[in-house]
Amino acid sequence: MRGWKRKDLLGIRELSREELEVVLATAEAFEGISRRSIKKAPTLRGRVVVNLFFEASTRTRFSFELAASRLSADVVNFEAPASSVVKGETLLDTARNIEAMGVDAVVVRHRAPGAPYLLARSLSASVINAGDGPHEHPTQALLDLYTIRKRKGRIEGLTVAIVGDISHSRVARSNLWALTKMGANVILVGPPTLVPGAFRKFGAQICYNLDDAIERADVIYMLRIQRERQEAGLFPSLSEYTRLFGLTERRLARAKDDCLVMHPGPINRGVEMSAEVADGQRSAILEQVSYGLAVRMAVLHLCVGAKDEFASDSQSKDN
Amino acid sequence: MRGWKRKDLLGIRELSREELEVVLATAEAFEGISRRSIKKAPTLRGRVVVNLFFEASTRTRFSFELAASRLSADVVNFEAPASSVVKGETLLDTARNIEAMGVDAVVVRHRAPGAPYLLARSLSASVINAGDGPHEHPTQALLDLYTIRKRKGRIEGLTVAIVGDISHSRVARSNLWALTKMGANVILVGPPTLVPGAFRKFGAQICYNLDDAIERADVIYMLRIQRERQEAGLFPSLSEYTRLFGLTERRLARAKDDCLVMHPGPINRGVEMSAEVADGQRSAILEQVSYGLAVRMAVLHLCVGAKDEFASDSQSKDN
Amino acid sequence: MRGWKRKDLLGIRELSREELEVVLATAEAFEGISRRSIKKAPTLRGRVVVNLFFEASTRTRFSFELAASRLSADVVNFEAPASSVVKGETLLDTARNIEAMGVDAVVVRHRAPGAPYLLARSLSASVINAGDGPHEHPTQALLDLYTIRKRKGRIEGLTVAIVGDISHSRVARSNLWALTKMGANVILVGPPTLVPGAFRKFGAQICYNLDDAIERADVIYMLRIQRERQEAGLFPSLSEYTRLFGLTERRLARAKDDCLVMHPGPINRGVEMSAEVADGQRSAILEQVSYGLAVRMAVLHLCVGAKDEFASDSQSKDN
Repeated sequence: MRGWKRKDLLGIRELSREELEVVLATAEAFEGISRRSIKKAPTLRGRVVVNLFFEASTRTRFSFELAASRLSADVVNFEAPASSVVKGETLLDTARNIEAMGVDAVVVRHRAPGAPYLLARSLSASVINAGDGPHEHPTQALLDLYTIRKRKGRIEGLTVAIVGDISHSRVARSNLWALTKMGANVILVGPPTLVPGAFRKFGAQICYNLDDAIERADVIYMLRIQRERQEAGLFPSLSEYTRLFGLTERRLARAKDDCLVMHPGPINRGVEMSAEVADGQRSAILEQVSYGLAVRMAVLHLCVGAKDEFASDSQSKDN
Repeated sequence: MRGWKRKDLLGIRELSREELEVVLATAEAFEGISRRSIKKAPTLRGRVVVNLFFEASTRTRFSFELAASRLSADVVNFEAPASSVVKGETLLDTARNIEAMGVDAVVVRHRAPGAPYLLARSLSASVINAGDGPHEHPTQALLDLYTIRKRKGRIEGLTVAIVGDISHSRVARSNLWALTKMGANVILVGPPTLVPGAFRKFGAQICYNLDDAIERADVIYMLRIQRERQEAGLFPSLSEYTRLFGLTERRLARAKDDCLVMHPGPINRGVEMSAEVADGQRSAILEQVSYGLAVRMAVLHLCVGAKDEFASDSQSKDN
Repeated sequence: MRGWKRKDLLGIRELSREELEVVLATAEAFEGISRRSIKKAPTLRGRVVVNLFFEASTRTRFSFELAASRLSADVVNFEAPASSVVKGETLLDTARNIEAMGVDAVVVRHRAPGAPYLLARSLSASVINAGDGPHEHPTQALLDLYTIRKRKGRIEGLTVAIVGDISHSRVARSNLWALTKMGANVILVGPPTLVPGAFRKFGAQICYNLDDAIERADVIYMLRIQRERQEAGLFPSLSEYTRLFGLTERRLARAKDDCLVMHPGPINRGVEMSAEVADGQRSAILEQVSYGLAVRMAVLHLCVGAKDEFASDSQSKDN
């Protein structure tokens, strides 16, 4: 594929704007398939994609499973608790064993930042990062870019407020890299305990007041808040958090008319966002989910394609 | 499909006799496929069926999975403990997210009566109820009708004794509606603590003595008894229950020669039914399981077909 | 298939050398498929293979799942905790129910020795033993034979040292039968508490000193050691075990230059084997995993083929 030479998708941070554009354009081509009644392309027929999930996940595992099967691949799910992980096998042994069975792509979610990088260096299969601890969740950021461009017609020059627990969020990190590379302005919003000032040096603005940020935003991207952060003393209580950083209809009234509301899911209704906002006209939340499929189809297609080219290159060199 | 206009199968209670007949006739057409060595029809190729099971189940999940894949659909399994349910997402958010990925049918089992109705109202995908608490289990009743008609040649005019814990049984409820609509006489049998007299007003006879009911029955339909009911004080002990309401060879000797014995599974051998009866000549228990596949293929085919027609109707109206 | 008439693969013990040869030759034919980019043969299209795993397993379940799907079969996974096993259904009822849904092969792992034999007698589907307690794990031994022959060119006349907890190992048992039938010499190595002298009467040599055995071995087959054995007092401590029976580079220096190191996985690195040995030149461990797929494809193909022939024979007799 012109413009894409990576066998793996590990993080947004190392991608160029051109690479982001290739994924978005490829997703555009795949988007139509999901709207047909026969939702199948033969692209990955006879290929094997493994979902290697060491953390539970509905939507991401699901989305990759459907994306792979829409490309006619065989998909095998591997979930940690039912596996030899309990027998103390190392991550690398598990992955090498899986690869030895002739696997073309490994979609991995793991709580350790960097785990997918470790796998990618050791495997000749494509490795797709589906979330590595608080580090990156690149397909989420790509589907977010795709959704913003679909709804707003562009990304460059837009102001995107990402609101919530920035510190612990891989979604925030991946989106920060993705949005700034595409020329958007990013405002990180939340209580000082959850918004590291250090992100300023990566081009983000920092704002501790949601109302201020809302007025300037073209996109308000709400993050899920975890009750554990309260237990760790990072904010006094969920209701206090909601009062200051929850998105309600009333608060949203200050926003631009054509402002977009996004969330990576699953939503805590009544906590970071009211039900009215989640289901309202400005919400693009279900579109994010729909477009996620096309984006993941594109990523699988590009990475497995690049892997094949790489493999045939090495073969020709051998001759 | 002539005679079937529903995108969902939620309960038997709201179906007409004609609709029941359409399902049975369609299942008849599909039954042959399961007897071939290549057990595939292209009916749902490229379609996606999701098994959304919030309660564990072997045979029902299995049966739907095989039925869908026999129709060439892609099947994705979603089981509750490994999912975002643990993160507190609402049922409706989960289902909407799944639908946003381009799903054609959602097969749902949930402990809350009415949960599939809630989903059906909000989703444009077909919703198939695979058991909602003690309320309904419509595909079970349909496969029971199918089995009875196969073995007895008819349903109208037959006397069917349903024996056991009627109060808590979705199988009993769905079968009561199904059998009475088809013109059978239903006797509900069990201890007074487990057989609500209120069912009389729906056309059932009530009987507290199994031996009396056995003599009149063309079909003896045994329900699974749950040890929890004993703990709740609804009967003194399992052995007491078995003595009064367990089906043994000896007790079965009083029945008509061509009487049929049925059970929705899984059987508690030695409790509600002896091993000899379960494996005996009169038992249709494994046939119920076999026919279940054809019936579920029929249901998926009819509902997804009706959904498509509905969607194309709405489209033409839009033009 | 000429030379193969069994609908089931239950254990190596009852197979003839000719039958072992048929599996190896068939695997040879399938091996190429896994090296293609489109890894599919239409052999079992429209057939259903069920993985019935009552014990957790990554690689075995995975390997069978991929093998079946590479033959174009539909695969359904059944794992015990999510199933009616919790409701107290008997193994046989579970299996009969699964079979009633038109299943062609059941791959079963169960902690009870003999469980697959019980199923095979009652089901007309093919039953493949994927491990029955400490009894047998026939496909493991077959893939081990295949790997040895690939790497060494032959099996007859080789000396194979199997090292570790022989007493509790189904891998050791199946390999003992397989290797001796093929004309190899087997040395069972380990502490006296874990190596039953009774195996002498099946043609094995017994050796309590790893260094002695290493010098004579063409293949060193290391077994996984379970911490539970230490708790049962069968050896003093893991580090003591490792000192005496762990395979290190230094110890391996005594072995023949072209000696092969094997392990059924998952490896306890640093316990029964050092990381250097596991990843070294002599290690055939990942090849075992790769060849496992071809061998399991062969087994599924042979057994389902024999089942079909048997079924059509019985039909012709009926006419």
